[in-house]
Amino acid sequence: MDNRPIGVFDSGLGGLTAVRELMDLLPNESIVYLGDTGRVPYGTRSKETILKYARQDINFLNTFDLKAILIACGTITTNGLDMIQKEYPLPILGVAEPAARAAAAATRNGRIGLIATQASIRSGLYERIIRAESPQTEIFSVPCPLFVSLVEAGHYAKGDPMVKLAAEEYLTSLQEQKIDTLILGCTHYPLLSDAIEDFFGPAVTLINSGAQGALTFREMLAQKDLLADPQQVSATYQYYVTDRTEQFSRLAAVFLGRPVSGLVEQVVIDQ
Amino acid sequence: MDNRPIGVFDSGLGGLTAVRELMDLLPNESIVYLGDTGRVPYGTRSKETILKYARQDINFLNTFDLKAILIACGTITTNGLDMIQKEYPLPILGVAEPAARAAAAATRNGRIGLIATQASIRSGLYERIIRAESPQTEIFSVPCPLFVSLVEAGHYAKGDPMVKLAAEEYLTSLQEQKIDTLILGCTHYPLLSDAIEDFFGPAVTLINSGAQGALTFREMLAQKDLLADPQQVSATYQYYVTDRTEQFSRLAAVFLGRPVSGLVEQVVIDQ
Repeated sequence: MDNRPIGVFDSGLGGLTAVRELMDLLPNESIVYLGDTGRVPYGTRSKETILKYARQDINFLNTFDLKAILIACGTITTNGLDMIQKEYPLPILGVAEPAARAAAAATRNGRIGLIATQASIRSGLYERIIRAESPQTEIFSVPCPLFVSLVEAGHYAKGDPMVKLAAEEYLTSLQEQKIDTLILGCTHYPLLSDAIEDFFGPAVTLINSGAQGALTFREMLAQKDLLADPQQVSATYQYYVTDRTEQFSRLAAVFLGRPVSGLVEQVVIDQ
Repeated sequence: MDNRPIGVFDSGLGGLTAVRELMDLLPNESIVYLGDTGRVPYGTRSKETILKYARQDINFLNTFDLKAILIACGTITTNGLDMIQKEYPLPILGVAEPAARAAAAATRNGRIGLIATQASIRSGLYERIIRAESPQTEIFSVPCPLFVSLVEAGHYAKGDPMVKLAAEEYLTSLQEQKIDTLILGCTHYPLLSDAIEDFFGPAVTLINSGAQGALTFREMLAQKDLLADPQQVSATYQYYVTDRTEQFSRLAAVFLGRPVSGLVEQVVIDQ
């Protein structure tokens, strides 16, 4: 048993889709969330920049007494998880490996699609994990630079004409490749699930990387005997952002699927 | 006469639309450009964050021996020009005042539209300048958070369906208000000029803030006797960015309206 909170972070708000899953899976766990909203998006940036920002994110989270950290961001996971795990003593998990394994297990025809940021796709990490599991599987990757901007601008509904156009632009080649499984490789994308399902129809299984990451995170906590004692603690939530809290509060409830309860505070982490 | 280069900076690539005008207006002036592509966009961020980033931008530019600086960014100009001018000894101009004055001079019916980032509109600077010139003028402001993302993702052509939808979303209320003049308050927006003209038709005059800023900048250099000696120098161009240069080089030619010639280098400015 370990009653200390867990840390979760992302470049912005997308990681809250993983927090949502954690709240459902682990209702007794307290969570300290950091969204680097002052520097979002990470997905168009270089590996070096992403790593620099990720270390500053973790250094901030480490000012709390945490038992473990979930990197709820596809871009950070794919560009730095291996290095970061070596640099910090506490358990740190990401969202890419759980999603890649789930996709490898889910595909029937061996044709998996991956949508993610440019930086995530450039890393090649999803391909490496899937090929290690099943070498015959084919992976088709498409960077979707507008999806994050659309979601953050409030465009994510299934019938939204701009979302439909973006879906057509990004997903048509995947449809032509006859994928049967699609990894949502960025934690912003679950908000677009309805629109993506609407595009593909029921033949394509969507893999939510934040949800898969949360499942694997729970397993890890259980294995290491780090779960909180439900008799002793009730969960508390703290949200930290690196830019104005107004912007965060407006959208956070949509990502969380419930009202924001708990502290929301702006912090400086880049010094 | 002063043969030292001028400095120009922006949160990203948008400022290159001002550089393009400077190159046409002042073909003998050497230019050092900084695009903070590692932290773009600024327009959704708080005033404090924008000011912090702007000071780091200028501190980097000041490592060169410059004669003057043009802030080729509506967001930085509206959120920090007054403070920044007090903090640095060299002449620093922005793009908001020139654009606001040009709009006040251009309107026939006293109804001006302003499209810009959220931070620019929040500042209220354009309204204050226009009202000081002509108190009866009405200003209608609309933040356009998706325009920058669309342009950076290569969506800016007049017939682009996503651009058309965004234009309808952002510009319909301005059309209903019967504006006859529209300030493009962000230096990314000139790339959308064709699409915006297509939406409004010829009845609305577009004011390009980068171009107006470049005109005023030339006047200031002439007044202070800071123009380069055309007999002595030929212009050189240096471009610095805070993220990968590949991303920059791909789009910069579109913004500049000509191929990129000169050094392009990635630098660290946030330390």
